[in-house]
Amino acid sequence: MTTAPPADAPVDAVVFEPAALLDTSGPGAVPRRGARRLVAALAAHGVPAHVRQAGGTGEAAGTVALAAQLGETGLAPHAQLLAEGRDPEGRVLSVLAAPPAPGGTPIAPTAPVVTIGDEEDVHQAVLGALTGEVGALAAASLLVAPPDADSVAAARDRHLALTKPPGSLGRLEDVGCQLAGIAAAVPPPVPGPAAVAVFAGDHGVHAQGVTPWPQEVTAQMVANFARGGAAINVLAGHAGARVVVVDVGVAADLPAELDASPVIRRRRVRAGTADLSTGPAMSPAEAREALDVGAETAARLVADDARCLVTGDMGIANTTPSAALVAALAGRPAEGVTGRGTGIDDATLGRKAAIVAAAAARAHAEHGDDALAVLAEVGGLEHAALAGFIIGGAALQVPVVIDGVIAAAALLVAARLVPGVEACVIAGHRSVEPGASAVLEELGLAPMVDLGLRLGEGTGAALALPLVESAALVLRDMATFDEAGVTDKAD
Amino acid sequence: MTTAPPADAPVDAVVFEPAALLDTSGPGAVPRRGARRLVAALAAHGVPAHVRQAGGTGEAAGTVALAAQLGETGLAPHAQLLAEGRDPEGRVLSVLAAPPAPGGTPIAPTAPVVTIGDEEDVHQAVLGALTGEVGALAAASLLVAPPDADSVAAARDRHLALTKPPGSLGRLEDVGCQLAGIAAAVPPPVPGPAAVAVFAGDHGVHAQGVTPWPQEVTAQMVANFARGGAAINVLAGHAGARVVVVDVGVAADLPAELDASPVIRRRRVRAGTADLSTGPAMSPAEAREALDVGAETAARLVADDARCLVTGDMGIANTTPSAALVAALAGRPAEGVTGRGTGIDDATLGRKAAIVAAAAARAHAEHGDDALAVLAEVGGLEHAALAGFIIGGAALQVPVVIDGVIAAAALLVAARLVPGVEACVIAGHRSVEPGASAVLEELGLAPMVDLGLRLGEGTGAALALPLVESAALVLRDMATFDEAGVTDKAD
Repeated sequence: MTTAPPADAPVDAVVFEPAALLDTSGPGAVPRRGARRLVAALAAHGVPAHVRQAGGTGEAAGTVALAAQLGETGLAPHAQLLAEGRDPEGRVLSVLAAPPAPGGTPIAPTAPVVTIGDEEDVHQAVLGALTGEVGALAAASLLVAPPDADSVAAARDRHLALTKPPGSLGRLEDVGCQLAGIAAAVPPPVPGPAAVAVFAGDHGVHAQGVTPWPQEVTAQMVANFARGGAAINVLAGHAGARVVVVDVGVAADLPAELDASPVIRRRRVRAGTADLSTGPAMSPAEAREALDVGAETAARLVADDARCLVTGDMGIANTTPSAALVAALAGRPAEGVTGRGTGIDDATLGRKAAIVAAAAARAHAEHGDDALAVLAEVGGLEHAALAGFIIGGAALQVPVVIDGVIAAAALLVAARLVPGVEACVIAGHRSVEPGASAVLEELGLAPMVDLGLRLGEGTGAALALPLVESAALVLRDMATFDEAGVTDKAD
Repeated sequence: MTTAPPADAPVDAVVFEPAALLDTSGPGAVPRRGARRLVAALAAHGVPAHVRQAGGTGEAAGTVALAAQLGETGLAPHAQLLAEGRDPEGRVLSVLAAPPAPGGTPIAPTAPVVTIGDEEDVHQAVLGALTGEVGALAAASLLVAPPDADSVAAARDRHLALTKPPGSLGRLEDVGCQLAGIAAAVPPPVPGPAAVAVFAGDHGVHAQGVTPWPQEVTAQMVANFARGGAAINVLAGHAGARVVVVDVGVAADLPAELDASPVIRRRRVRAGTADLSTGPAMSPAEAREALDVGAETAARLVADDARCLVTGDMGIANTTPSAALVAALAGRPAEGVTGRGTGIDDATLGRKAAIVAAAAARAHAEHGDDALAVLAEVGGLEHAALAGFIIGGAALQVPVVIDGVIAAAALLVAARLVPGVEACVIAGHRSVEPGASAVLEELGLAPMVDLGLRLGEGTGAALALPLVESAALVLRDMATFDEAGVTDKAD
């Protein structure tokens, strides 16, 4: 009745209490928001979802009713009935049955099973439980699902009914439909408040003179973020978004005054990467650890009520590993994806592009399409954390608004690790850096804002937040032609 | 000592009490914000500014001190001392003297003189006083001044001191400097709250079948605005902006329920224009009246504490007169500036472009560069009101954020009536309509947002408001390198 999990499935099953997936507060059972996509995502990753009918048997009336509900709400076949009870001799039996088959296949799980009860947010509950078993990134990867097609179509239909010419809000309509697909709801919930996570790291390649800024600025700017004086503080504040800073790889000691800062998370994996121009920037294990930091950060922010995640970054010299990642993973020439970062002259740009070209070629030759290995070879700790952060947000059905080239390079890593994750991503802006545009083109994303920014920190993404929120508000608050008594156009 | 006003100067002089221009609350006198530009603008339009020293004579110590203050604060030579007193025979004398010249030229004003006391906002006071003499548009035209160059330069310097790479906030930095120039202050005041004025009018050219929408939709949408169900209500609301709707030329009766609406202003000049394809759309007097409505609306909204004005529009078929205005005033081919509006097929587009071409050619042949006459010949009542609204905002040193092609066409009219007024304008977005881009190019404006909108109502401009506010907040709230203890880059 059930298929055996693939050999590499990290857990045997996720066991749900019925209330975790079904809302029975009304006259009939309806699936909780996103429940169908959740169980489908798990199934697609080889992890079956079992719905427990405790205290009954395969033949009991309650079990039959629950099985019918699973079918009617579209949760079956991915959510299978797990009826538990005792046989005539009094032995405990678990029986998988969908539809209910008296005396269905008894199962005896051998690998980890996590059990989900009536938690407020089922995605958060599943992610939290699985994280305990397999780690944050692997857990998040299991939950990423394509946008809900029914919700996208319903949002498109609603747009046609609103008092405006069809399509006249342009890309704002597309984003509204995307938000509906991510949340599996029409109108989609307003993606606010947002939270900006600024992942900070340093880069050994700084020694090659790829930037005029001293490396100490990374730590100094972390202090500036903590005090609220940086551009991202101002722009996020105006958008109603909080800012947290995650030290995932700063080289210098942070000022002691930051020990008590509520906005700094100390999750340093190592004190800056090694020089990517002379060897691997970090080990695969370090990259994995930073990926977990990012996914955990996403989960924590959503648990603290963020309804939109925004990528931020700080790291002197970090446009160099960004360009190397894009060149290696997208197979693009280094000159086409290497930019001037915070502002360098022609000679420095030439040196930087040569370093990018050599590093990308080495990474590709040694690791091919192995995105984790390429990330470790030529990436940065903030890139790894950002990739995990994006996957974590997608797992929780929360839109992730990305900033410039550092985030774009991280997104490319994320999309190689979890194909399709970019469907939950909104490109906040078009950075001046050519590598950013290369990734947007590669993944078919269109930016919300194009104002010639090249600052990083999450600034371009923060500027996009009111636009993203507006896309949801239009679907929620505008009147339809019928409601407003406005004549629709003649066809 | 003073030059005689030009023959066409609408008023002889504006007489200021010293406190209207000088702030003497500190140790020395300083000009009130914008006072220098105000008197320079009046002088440029042939209207001298006189500063009254009442109760003294040309020789009195107070008069000498005031004259010195005018010189030291840079208000002289445009603000001239008007010393009033009595001669030894007891006759009242007014003596113009800058610098103080005992026994300076006695003057006896013969045309209207307006007197400005210690009002809170000197621009509003002058505009209000002049409006009573010459009408809202003419009064506003006298006050439009170029951006304050000192403030623009100071904002640029401040940007270089803030904790970010120079220029890295791209166009946001340009807009911040523009706001500083408009307000003559660094940091510029945050341009909020904003107010959107949606000017509604109908168009006789609707009879030519240039749109699939029935004309009754204009009045229906006015009702929709009043009830809060339209896109502009949602988007302005999210930006913290109020919406007012001005019926400057709707054809149909408005629903009786709107009589009590606080958001509707009834300033209908006529019930829709005549068909511009067969003759003049309106008379020059009607166009002037609508221009005054727009300028008055701007003044009223600023008096009600708006610190940013946003153009909105509603009028079925109004992309046709927009294209005609752009074609006639910018000398562009009709095909290049005529778009699909709310969505028309190829056959309708061809017919529309032919109408635009013929109307623009007629307007140009009959009126040449006479913008008021061209406006009356082929424009709409909402275009006229919008042009007045833009000039009114500029007169009050308030930024005006414009929406799409209707506003762009109106801006072109405004810029022909008051050259340079576009320096106070921010292009909210790039409309899909080609005529809008033509005007932006003509006037050297770059849009804030480019999301493929073609709705009107002010929606694209409303989306830009958080970006415009952010441009001011960055200058106000970011830390400098010195304040934050961040090392600036090596040069």
